Amino acid sequence: MTASLITLTTDFGTRDWFVGTMKGVILGIAPRARLIDLTHEIAPGDIAAGAFALSVSCSYFPPGTIHLAVIDPGVGSERPAVAIQTDQGFYVGPDNGLFSRVLAGQRIRAVHCLTNPRYQLADVSRTFHGRDIFATAAAYLAKGVKIKQLGSVYAAPLQEIDSARTGPEITQKKNGCQIVGRIQYIDRFGNAITNIRPAHWPEEAVVREIRVGRRLLRGLQSSYAAVPPGHPLAILGSTGYVEIAVNGGSAAQQFSLKVGDPVRVLAVTAG
Amino acid sequence: MTASLITLTTDFGTRDWFVGTMKGVILGIAPRARLIDLTHEIAPGDIAAGAFALSVSCSYFPPGTIHLAVIDPGVGSERPAVAIQTDQGFYVGPDNGLFSRVLAGQRIRAVHCLTNPRYQLADVSRTFHGRDIFATAAAYLAKGVKIKQLGSVYAAPLQEIDSARTGPEITQKKNGCQIVGRIQYIDRFGNAITNIRPAHWPEEAVVREIRVGRRLLRGLQSSYAAVPPGHPLAILGSTGYVEIAVNGGSAAQQFSLKVGDPVRVLAVTAG
Amino acid sequence: MTASLITLTTDFGTRDWFVGTMKGVILGIAPRARLIDLTHEIAPGDIAAGAFALSVSCSYFPPGTIHLAVIDPGVGSERPAVAIQTDQGFYVGPDNGLFSRVLAGQRIRAVHCLTNPRYQLADVSRTFHGRDIFATAAAYLAKGVKIKQLGSVYAAPLQEIDSARTGPEITQKKNGCQIVGRIQYIDRFGNAITNIRPAHWPEEAVVREIRVGRRLLRGLQSSYAAVPPGHPLAILGSTGYVEIAVNGGSAAQQFSLKVGDPVRVLAVTAG
Repeated sequence: MTASLITLTTDFGTRDWFVGTMKGVILGIAPRARLIDLTHEIAPGDIAAGAFALSVSCSYFPPGTIHLAVIDPGVGSERPAVAIQTDQGFYVGPDNGLFSRVLAGQRIRAVHCLTNPRYQLADVSRTFHGRDIFATAAAYLAKGVKIKQLGSVYAAPLQEIDSARTGPEITQKKNGCQIVGRIQYIDRFGNAITNIRPAHWPEEAVVREIRVGRRLLRGLQSSYAAVPPGHPLAILGSTGYVEIAVNGGSAAQQFSLKVGDPVRVLAVTAG
Repeated sequence: MTASLITLTTDFGTRDWFVGTMKGVILGIAPRARLIDLTHEIAPGDIAAGAFALSVSCSYFPPGTIHLAVIDPGVGSERPAVAIQTDQGFYVGPDNGLFSRVLAGQRIRAVHCLTNPRYQLADVSRTFHGRDIFATAAAYLAKGVKIKQLGSVYAAPLQEIDSARTGPEITQKKNGCQIVGRIQYIDRFGNAITNIRPAHWPEEAVVREIRVGRRLLRGLQSSYAAVPPGHPLAILGSTGYVEIAVNGGSAAQQFSLKVGDPVRVLAVTAG
Repeated sequence: MTASLITLTTDFGTRDWFVGTMKGVILGIAPRARLIDLTHEIAPGDIAAGAFALSVSCSYFPPGTIHLAVIDPGVGSERPAVAIQTDQGFYVGPDNGLFSRVLAGQRIRAVHCLTNPRYQLADVSRTFHGRDIFATAAAYLAKGVKIKQLGSVYAAPLQEIDSARTGPEITQKKNGCQIVGRIQYIDRFGNAITNIRPAHWPEEAVVREIRVGRRLLRGLQSSYAAVPPGHPLAILGSTGYVEIAVNGGSAAQQFSLKVGDPVRVLAVTAG
């Protein structure tokens, strides 16, 4: 039997003991669980960034993986704590929109509240449900406890976030289309990831121009090194979205890009 | 058999190879050990912060866990290297006060020096006993070596640190008490953790006022979200101590709080 | 059977999902693999720093360990992806000099290109071969796939980097020698690690002076604490090289040291 896999995604950072303590709680309950950090450096309370991170990475984990995610500015208030089972795996965390993107396109089998005190720590604090409620729920799922044992069926619809709903605007043109999207994430290298992807233009079309601020980029490149060092480029990134990058540099810094900035793509049919 | 659990707490950071190398040494000796990072971002040489982190997290790990902690500004000097066995688990590191807080209230069974070269690397460096002496000792304990094999009985009393000794000052009042404590830790969110906890006021009393700097806070809140975004609050934090926080913000930044700053709590009996 | 050990060294940072996703891919292929982070905080594209980190830590891992390293500014261009088998273990990553230092002195048994699509993800992105090609190759090696199955024999010589070739300049003197080296790495504590080590002076000689900038240091100390707090010292560091340090402080900051700065060591025979 392979030990269950649990991923952890939080805004807790790694300079305090928060994440380590969650892992201690998990391994006390499910000693054979495998723990993988997705990231703990989501900006405090940035649910949209957490939702994006989950949406571009969970599919790379084996079926049945338990994704524990705690970006939880409403901890201790009335916001519900849930576990979600899909045909791909489990998602455990607050219902605040964090899972709205990764769940898109998945078949949801069950959603339950984390209300059964049997699967929580004996003392539940006001400020650290990551340790006291979410870590324990993930650990008991890893140990084989059924999702329905964790609490009552969750009747409300799961929270959405805006970024999960609003895609780019596409205007059909005579020989192609114009796509107006926006930057949805800036990564550690300063690459600006847009919300524009190949499905937004006709299969027979090619991207001719990308406009971001006053900058005009010609076509999609096949690698960062396809332009000279220090030069900007657009490329189809590893998340499946068009990215604005600088070879060997930071596009975000060089062009003062930030999340929400508009990006225009012109795709034309060849000939 | 469950593999032994080893936690790691250091001020080594994660940008160099230090922690990874310690783990390589451990797994070379005890291939089945489970390794959990508590934190490696303790400020260089900040023994008090390390002692606090251990004191609020070790109890969340299963019995028998080996806590390896290396905040060791005196590495290579005469400061002793020790392993400590209690009824809850093991502690391995320098004897410089790092364990003084987590050991409070635990029954100590044995303390031994790490002097047996058989349980050290063949070449012991002058500056990295985390790798050459402490990691090996933790790994051999995980493998089943008895603590007494690691070296002679440690005869000296274990080092204390001031913060382990000095609690808040409590003044009895007619209908309650005033507690004068201080900020002992500031976490990643900018929450300021005091050294004041419910045991310091009568069970039948309630906290009416918290004063920090010129700021007066009324009562303890039940969640961060109990006050409007950007507003300050006091709350009983997940470590069991009273914390000063800002909903969605950083109390430390907003009020220029730092470790050592005084905090006054007024608790009164209802009626 | 002990599960295979895979170390990870990248410049991906930990604030995004990159490393976590690589681990998901690995555990989907090789569920029993043990994963150890060496570091993910190598400065973006700094191949020399990555090569140094590998060279001072890989030998602390058990034989047969698979070292997966991705500092890959040329991702998606024509730079080759390789797996290398030596008598100590495996190295998987781009052939851009990253392994040139750690391989020095090892017997290389085989080098193969990572060209077999069977051991890659179905969709290989243009920008994240760490996930799509390198993680899969490491995982299949961990699972027992032979290196020759990963792709054709790599015919070209492996890339070198300058820092792997150029050692310090040694001038023989009547009663000893002068060694002119340079700073090759600055660690998290601000210790400046030179490229000068004991093999560079006669066994019967002792280091009398170390010059860095306008600063003259007398002899090698036996611990940081051998000088008063805030004072500089030279010491034989845990990597085997002479380091410039400040007791309780940062030598790099205090003396504005940076990688490449010259360091002069005068070693004299006693008497």
